[in-house]
Amino acid sequence: MLSSFPPNFTALIQGSSRGIGLALVERLLNEPRVGRVLACARRPDGSAGLARLAETHAGRLQMVQLDITDSGQLEALADGLRAERLRPHLVINVAGILHDGQGLAPEKRLEDLDFERMQRVFAVNALGPALLCRHLLPLMATDGKAVLAALSARVGSIGDNRLGGWYAYRSSKAALNQILKTASIEARRRFKNVVLAALHPGTTDTNLSRPFQANVPDDKLFSTDFVAERLLSVIDQLELGDSGGFFAWDGQSIPW
Amino acid sequence: MLSSFPPNFTALIQGSSRGIGLALVERLLNEPRVGRVLACARRPDGSAGLARLAETHAGRLQMVQLDITDSGQLEALADGLRAERLRPHLVINVAGILHDGQGLAPEKRLEDLDFERMQRVFAVNALGPALLCRHLLPLMATDGKAVLAALSARVGSIGDNRLGGWYAYRSSKAALNQILKTASIEARRRFKNVVLAALHPGTTDTNLSRPFQANVPDDKLFSTDFVAERLLSVIDQLELGDSGGFFAWDGQSIPW
Repeated sequence: MLSSFPPNFTALIQGSSRGIGLALVERLLNEPRVGRVLACARRPDGSAGLARLAETHAGRLQMVQLDITDSGQLEALADGLRAERLRPHLVINVAGILHDGQGLAPEKRLEDLDFERMQRVFAVNALGPALLCRHLLPLMATDGKAVLAALSARVGSIGDNRLGGWYAYRSSKAALNQILKTASIEARRRFKNVVLAALHPGTTDTNLSRPFQANVPDDKLFSTDFVAERLLSVIDQLELGDSGGFFAWDGQSIPW
Repeated sequence: MLSSFPPNFTALIQGSSRGIGLALVERLLNEPRVGRVLACARRPDGSAGLARLAETHAGRLQMVQLDITDSGQLEALADGLRAERLRPHLVINVAGILHDGQGLAPEKRLEDLDFERMQRVFAVNALGPALLCRHLLPLMATDGKAVLAALSARVGSIGDNRLGGWYAYRSSKAALNQILKTASIEARRRFKNVVLAALHPGTTDTNLSRPFQANVPDDKLFSTDFVAERLLSVIDQLELGDSGGFFAWDGQSIPW
């Protein structure tokens, strides 16, 4: 696993306090090929999962407080990486918002659309990941293959949109796909070894999907560990020519 | 022209104070089939073009002050339409932002990305049009064919993205395309006679394209009147099965 990366490489997971992000951190820490894991989250201190991993992987796990909608915090992270001469070979943005249990919920119909709520969804799902590209792409490792991936979602596919609804989430993920595609074109010129990819994890048993799991067949509702393993496998197999693409957990390409 | 709409129909143009929006208003006022034109803009009073048209088409042109990023103003517009029992057969959102001559400019590289500026571009190009759909779709005419169209842009196509750059503009237009596609699915259920479409006007001689016209061949730089005529022709030919699609000024379908 992860044999396409050099030994002792550094990985950075954004949105690592729970769910798929936490499962990715755990998987990476269990991979001998991984040197250091930077686990970023808005409140890493509040994560029981990260605290548990820190006990057994003290030297390799580094928690970072990070809100990717705040340029200042991203600059501070970049300064820290430069100071430590750490160049990640792998960056994955997992953070995303669909609902918050406090008024923000995916719109069932047009009447549910609300400017401030849409703006918040776009900030987290599209603008934040764009800033992450801006601040981290220039700092990624330049030897061998490097990957910057972000969790998108099949419902962000415009061509595959059959059910409608979920306006803000769908359109913010379409925007994210375009941002990653655009960054992949710039990377081809400036960061030639970096592969960018939008990834669809499938419906995973997390807080994000919890209110919508009722109609998901058991064999289509994945555990976070299964998804983490699948996503890392897809990432491991990415080649330079795949950069800017949109791939599902099983490696299949998804239409825009 | 516009024979797919009933005689004496009402059209609403958002972003009508200049450029393509103003040319659409003028074209529509010159069409005998059009009854009333509602010309919406943030500052219609400041438009010399609208003032000129008002002189010769006093009874048929109605100016409306409207900022589509403000739900309250959209509600007031909806109230006004209900009070006058006006149901538009045609709504076109033309307003869009690429640069403002005051710091907002399309990003040439990742380092140009800025959270607040991206947020502003998304507000005008994607969230505003979403609110326009929310407030106006339920008020559109229910007899015969009705069309709600918004100006998108070929650079918003993810699949057709070859040059990169222009992060905020490209991704906000991809988001707009997804919003219109999503609304078209809801319309199929609730507003069965309304066709929604994202339209690419081609590079047009307006303030929006002015800083980028140097490399555009003369025969590829369109006049606003030419584009208005082409867009109305495309709109005239739209059928229900086209709803949710993305079409260029020449009627060609554009990939997502």
